[in-house]
Amino acid sequence: MKKIQSVIDRIQPPEESGRLLAKRRLDRLTKPPGSLGRLESLAVWYVGATGKVPVPPLQKAIVVFAGDHGVTEEKVSAYPKAVTAQMVYNFLNGGAAINVLARQAGADVRVIDMGVDHDFGKRPGLVDRKIARGTRNMKFGYALSRRKALSAIAVGCELAEEEARRGTNLLGTGEMGIGNTTASSAITALLTGAPVGTVTGRGTGIDLPALRAKRAVIQEAIRVNRPNRHDPIDVLSKVGGFEIAGIVGLLLGAAAHRIPVVVDGFISTAAALIAVSLAPEVKEYLLSAHRSAEPGHRIALAKLGLRPLFDLEMRLGEGTGAALAMGWVESAVRILTEMATFDEAGVSGPEREK
Amino acid sequence: MKKIQSVIDRIQPPEESGRLLAKRRLDRLTKPPGSLGRLESLAVWYVGATGKVPVPPLQKAIVVFAGDHGVTEEKVSAYPKAVTAQMVYNFLNGGAAINVLARQAGADVRVIDMGVDHDFGKRPGLVDRKIARGTRNMKFGYALSRRKALSAIAVGCELAEEEARRGTNLLGTGEMGIGNTTASSAITALLTGAPVGTVTGRGTGIDLPALRAKRAVIQEAIRVNRPNRHDPIDVLSKVGGFEIAGIVGLLLGAAAHRIPVVVDGFISTAAALIAVSLAPEVKEYLLSAHRSAEPGHRIALAKLGLRPLFDLEMRLGEGTGAALAMGWVESAVRILTEMATFDEAGVSGPEREK
Repeated sequence: MKKIQSVIDRIQPPEESGRLLAKRRLDRLTKPPGSLGRLESLAVWYVGATGKVPVPPLQKAIVVFAGDHGVTEEKVSAYPKAVTAQMVYNFLNGGAAINVLARQAGADVRVIDMGVDHDFGKRPGLVDRKIARGTRNMKFGYALSRRKALSAIAVGCELAEEEARRGTNLLGTGEMGIGNTTASSAITALLTGAPVGTVTGRGTGIDLPALRAKRAVIQEAIRVNRPNRHDPIDVLSKVGGFEIAGIVGLLLGAAAHRIPVVVDGFISTAAALIAVSLAPEVKEYLLSAHRSAEPGHRIALAKLGLRPLFDLEMRLGEGTGAALAMGWVESAVRILTEMATFDEAGVSGPEREK
Repeated sequence: MKKIQSVIDRIQPPEESGRLLAKRRLDRLTKPPGSLGRLESLAVWYVGATGKVPVPPLQKAIVVFAGDHGVTEEKVSAYPKAVTAQMVYNFLNGGAAINVLARQAGADVRVIDMGVDHDFGKRPGLVDRKIARGTRNMKFGYALSRRKALSAIAVGCELAEEEARRGTNLLGTGEMGIGNTTASSAITALLTGAPVGTVTGRGTGIDLPALRAKRAVIQEAIRVNRPNRHDPIDVLSKVGGFEIAGIVGLLLGAAAHRIPVVVDGFISTAAALIAVSLAPEVKEYLLSAHRSAEPGHRIALAKLGLRPLFDLEMRLGEGTGAALAMGWVESAVRILTEMATFDEAGVSGPEREK
């Protein structure tokens, strides 16, 4: 916890002066003031977070954390657990949706093995930070020990630090872990106070009986583990996962290094609930990409006070929503840096009343 | 009208076989079926419209039609009429929002002078198809003659034909014309039957007294001109504009050449109302980019049965919403063409019930 606390202690609020400079420039550009709507707010958010004017070219990376879940024994997913490892190979080979969308956005994809139940050996492109071969089945006790949860958060913090050293100035979150909507629903129920029934959805696409079973498993896990809602690390350890803990750490570390982060879907937002509980100022560095089809996502976003940029009814995870939203952050930054002002272009401003 | 009718006669419905091929492939890709939500529908729409499998690389262009409006005499805009020409120069110099966003999307920008009240002389990059130096003030009679309206539509058809020859396989609409939300509100009121009050908004940002005056001008224009709601060309000629007519023609021509089109905001959608009234099958070739902040836009979209992809509270026009949405069409197409299938990646499918 000492390592994590030192990261938390570094987090500062965004620079009001940067936000103001961005706003002033936006109003001098050749368009009616405010007419680019939320794209303008994005530019202000970005400059406020980094505090850097002029804005340097964007260097984007999406960090995809992978981990397995013991709770898959309870048939909470439509897919077998082996798919987590198989999809990691797919990420490394560039064939998954996140690879396609990240390429288009000009973002690097980092693939982090936080806790996959598979021995990958040495694989080019795979960052091996495995803490264990998956979590334990939360139905019968804690998913990961408090010590392991803290280690996993620390890994995320270190990865953010590495990104800062590399010059990354826009991060996106991603994840892969069969069973992780179960963990995220449990976290969301605990940290928002919403009933398990309303925050638990069909994940990869289970049928109604399986959905009922999934809800019952989460209820049981909460009954057995009695997580302390006022201790986000306790919640993470009792019903979370290694990839979720990694995202928590990435969010903390990114805020400490003033790197704005695009938060993907439901799992990433569950991690954001934990990170913001640990350090409320993290929120200012976060952008919610989209509202996913998972019912708990809306509730988690409301609790965080984050308004998603779009809703394409996506429910894939991996960071796919973040990749799309990163394109818009780039649009916003380019508007700020590339558009002509009224003076430069010789365009008349609004007519004043006489 | 003969020229336009021959274009309309060429329009075919999209290819069901193309749509089916796209759907089948999407379900074999390494993701839960349907988990990319509307991005998957976009891919199906695109392939259905072009009918081409495999999908060739995208060649994108945004066609920005410019025209002036006599009704600006009535102070319906916050900006002086001269801004139309000034912004055309800005487009040619690459300093406007549409230039920035189109560059990012990898789309060419074509700038068409359909009826700007300014003599540009020969300007590199400007396509001179000027029909008149702006419309007449609709408050006192028709905005443009029926003959000129038809000529302007024919220009749009020819431009679509040129794009087809160039190999463009994704078009976006854009426009510039101080006063053109007034024309678009009038068109929307007439073709949807909605009251003028509910379809008329603040455009570039007028205050409440000016908004009241704008509504009164539209009411008066409709009273004076008595446009025939069942004759879309009559509506266009009485209360429309040259740039709007150009978009109408582009939409017809694009559908005839099976080029999918991303429709930008309120003005483009008013043009779509006219185009779809002339040829209902045009609708299948259209994608609504976004819902703009103009109140009439929602009503026009509902009439067309088009569901916008996103809402960033934008109200700039120029094609800015279309440029952002084109990035997503490209994402959808890349998902279809670049992602690995379950077989290729060796990933297990969903577990079947025993």
